[in-house]
Amino acid sequence: MKNIILCLSTTLLATCLILPVCLQSQATQLAEQKNKQAELNLDDTKIIKQFFDEALTTRETYDLLDHLCNKIGHRLSGSEGAAKAVEWTAKVMTEYGFDKVYKQDVMVPNWKRGEKEVARIVGGTKTNLTVLALGMSVATPGEGLTAEVVEVQALEDLESLGEEKIKGRIVFYNRAADQRHIQTGAAYGGAVDQRSAGPSMAAKYGAVGVVIRSVGTAFDDVPHTGVTSYKDGIPKIPAAALGFQSADLLTEALKKNPNTKLFLKMSCQTLEDAPSHNVIGELTGSEFPDEIITIGGHLDSWDVGHGAHDDGAGCMQSIQVLRLFQKLGIKPKRTIRAVMFMNEENGTRGGKKYAELAEKNKENHLIALESDAGAFTPRGFGVTADDSTIDKFRSWLPYFNQNTISYIKKGGGGVDIGPLHRTLGTPTIGFIPDSQRMFDLHHSPSDVFSTVHPRELELGTASIASLIYFIDKYGL
Amino acid sequence: MKNIILCLSTTLLATCLILPVCLQSQATQLAEQKNKQAELNLDDTKIIKQFFDEALTTRETYDLLDHLCNKIGHRLSGSEGAAKAVEWTAKVMTEYGFDKVYKQDVMVPNWKRGEKEVARIVGGTKTNLTVLALGMSVATPGEGLTAEVVEVQALEDLESLGEEKIKGRIVFYNRAADQRHIQTGAAYGGAVDQRSAGPSMAAKYGAVGVVIRSVGTAFDDVPHTGVTSYKDGIPKIPAAALGFQSADLLTEALKKNPNTKLFLKMSCQTLEDAPSHNVIGELTGSEFPDEIITIGGHLDSWDVGHGAHDDGAGCMQSIQVLRLFQKLGIKPKRTIRAVMFMNEENGTRGGKKYAELAEKNKENHLIALESDAGAFTPRGFGVTADDSTIDKFRSWLPYFNQNTISYIKKGGGGVDIGPLHRTLGTPTIGFIPDSQRMFDLHHSPSDVFSTVHPRELELGTASIASLIYFIDKYGL
Repeated sequence: MKNIILCLSTTLLATCLILPVCLQSQATQLAEQKNKQAELNLDDTKIIKQFFDEALTTRETYDLLDHLCNKIGHRLSGSEGAAKAVEWTAKVMTEYGFDKVYKQDVMVPNWKRGEKEVARIVGGTKTNLTVLALGMSVATPGEGLTAEVVEVQALEDLESLGEEKIKGRIVFYNRAADQRHIQTGAAYGGAVDQRSAGPSMAAKYGAVGVVIRSVGTAFDDVPHTGVTSYKDGIPKIPAAALGFQSADLLTEALKKNPNTKLFLKMSCQTLEDAPSHNVIGELTGSEFPDEIITIGGHLDSWDVGHGAHDDGAGCMQSIQVLRLFQKLGIKPKRTIRAVMFMNEENGTRGGKKYAELAEKNKENHLIALESDAGAFTPRGFGVTADDSTIDKFRSWLPYFNQNTISYIKKGGGGVDIGPLHRTLGTPTIGFIPDSQRMFDLHHSPSDVFSTVHPRELELGTASIASLIYFIDKYGL
Repeated sequence: MKNIILCLSTTLLATCLILPVCLQSQATQLAEQKNKQAELNLDDTKIIKQFFDEALTTRETYDLLDHLCNKIGHRLSGSEGAAKAVEWTAKVMTEYGFDKVYKQDVMVPNWKRGEKEVARIVGGTKTNLTVLALGMSVATPGEGLTAEVVEVQALEDLESLGEEKIKGRIVFYNRAADQRHIQTGAAYGGAVDQRSAGPSMAAKYGAVGVVIRSVGTAFDDVPHTGVTSYKDGIPKIPAAALGFQSADLLTEALKKNPNTKLFLKMSCQTLEDAPSHNVIGELTGSEFPDEIITIGGHLDSWDVGHGAHDDGAGCMQSIQVLRLFQKLGIKPKRTIRAVMFMNEENGTRGGKKYAELAEKNKENHLIALESDAGAFTPRGFGVTADDSTIDKFRSWLPYFNQNTISYIKKGGGGVDIGPLHRTLGTPTIGFIPDSQRMFDLHHSPSDVFSTVHPRELELGTASIASLIYFIDKYGL
């Protein structure tokens, strides 16, 4: 174990005002961590290595993801792909011989994109733009919609423009994600309000449609979809995302001619809610079968690409964590569940149903982990739990190669396990892979299997298995 | 600076036998680090952020690498590409207005691959295999070479087989890189003896040729070249690398028929040594101009693909570190040099010449850093220096976002700065990016610009600039 680093949070330092006392306490913690490490070394070091060896050599997560992406494909809630993925993941876990495999019924939104969307700059060269309707968007009139375009950088711009300049027009939200963020999730988070809240905000001022610059980090022309949320009491107007370069074309056209018109045609529909399922596989705990550790991803995806990183990867990793325990002959003390949540993308119905049933059945949930940030090389975990739990997790860092998990940060979870946290107070963990490439692909036709690197994906599986192993063995 | 972690090496812990004393000393160090951080925060935090902001938004490293790869291409020592790259990098640094830009003359080996190589399983379906001659290999006879094949897993197998079973045959080294290593450099290092020493070892037992399973980590059929070293006094025999899947085909053929013959045709030549250059750009130090900090990569590459990761990236990063200082108006105290070393791949003549001239000119080299491990997302630095220097470097870790540089490990450098270390005792640093994808591409036609991610590349530039900034400001 050369080059191990031991990590202490500066938060700890910052909260200590009387240095000598504080440092003694840190010293004690260091000593405790060191002693603990010495205790654990014999068995645990060996098992952690086995997790990584097995994942890197058999690449079973990668093989499963290959099947999910290339044989089933994308899996929007209510679609045929989603239904196939439910049956297939249940079959995979049954064939592995997990102790229990079952489904939870859940009704999900049933939105259909319809025919391929059209966005075209009217007049001049009649430039076609790359476009994807936003998820849950309404359609344009059947013959399409033509209107002048008003370009803004932020939701707040609408107020100063007022109804006079917006009414009857298409609002074009054109603020790009801020590339200065080192974590691209923050870049995404800083721009996504245009997609989620933009359409209803524009409709409030009388806009007839919305287009946005795709919320992504690549300078290509692939549009990125994603859900929009219409506000009650405000007319629903059609909303779509343009490719990055298409957004450039539109803004250039508007500079030349502020009266530039855009033609938009979309035939999306929201049908009646459809029946679907969460899929659950379980290894039953040998000592504390009632203490449940949940590991999950979401099985649904957008209806473009393969949903490989978002979130086929997280689902296949969750199954493979249990599979690694099984293959190495490790009988968990607690019950470990792999959960394929349904409908993260446009409703979180699966996550809500899971929490609802956990409460109803008086289940005892120790902790829940979600992997939904891509199949990239591991960097850390984010943990929403007591400080003492976070300290305990940090004491396990020396077991990880520093090129896999190098930190445990305070705060983390996932969309699907949020309801469990809110309902039962269950602590949550988010797996944090490297973020640099995620938002090049996210919600777009580019999120396909060929962009997944087998070793990066498998390092994720083994990293999650390692943390779950420690939690199962030593508790929180 | 949320979620900062402070890191202490366990080496430090392990060497302390009397715990209370040791822990007090650690406590003191923690306090010192904390105080130092408090002192630095105002200026340094701001400047580190500027390095990252500037790199991530202007992407100048990426633009330079685009030119090097797509306008110049691969750059084997002695080739037209190498000569063009020398002129172009000198021009780039001159146009940037660096304080000094100059070349160092160096004679380099001049090996030519010749016509496209042929490797074919004789008889049956006459299967063509993907193949690349190893660098510095001799040619086969003009009409090619046909011989039976003896497959081995390791150099040591030859001794037990003996001359009887090897003489007149082609030796096939078939040991794959071990995927269990988390750092793929270790997987590569554990298999590369077959390429470097294998041919001469086989010739010693009378083999007429050598083929190896390419030393790489991808399960594709792209062959990976790389230098082989013939031993004096042993006949030089032709040697080539097969694609991974081609190696599978050959081993299957041998299982069916142990007398399977292989046809091999290569027309490589080693010409007279050719004149070439190291290219150097300098920002002259304002306080200690005689103290030199070297940052380098190697400008030569193999004669396939673009040499994008190996090592166009390291060269462009080196130039851009100086460029970032220049753009932010930071006048270094010490002299900082960006060095494009020539001939790392098959001779290290540039690295040797640089050290030779440093000694001859009585230069004072403070430290040297090399980036030659790919354009991937940053993970750490490896440092060959006194423990006190390493501790000092670790005290700067809190300034790095934990998703960039998360550790400083003991031991590191680079092939080109090795001679400087050996000649003058100069401490060395190796930049460590994530290694998962490097050996899929390394030395192969797949090492092209399109596999470089702009943000990953630029995070490397900014990480190196940050460390160099601290070294320049605070010394070792």
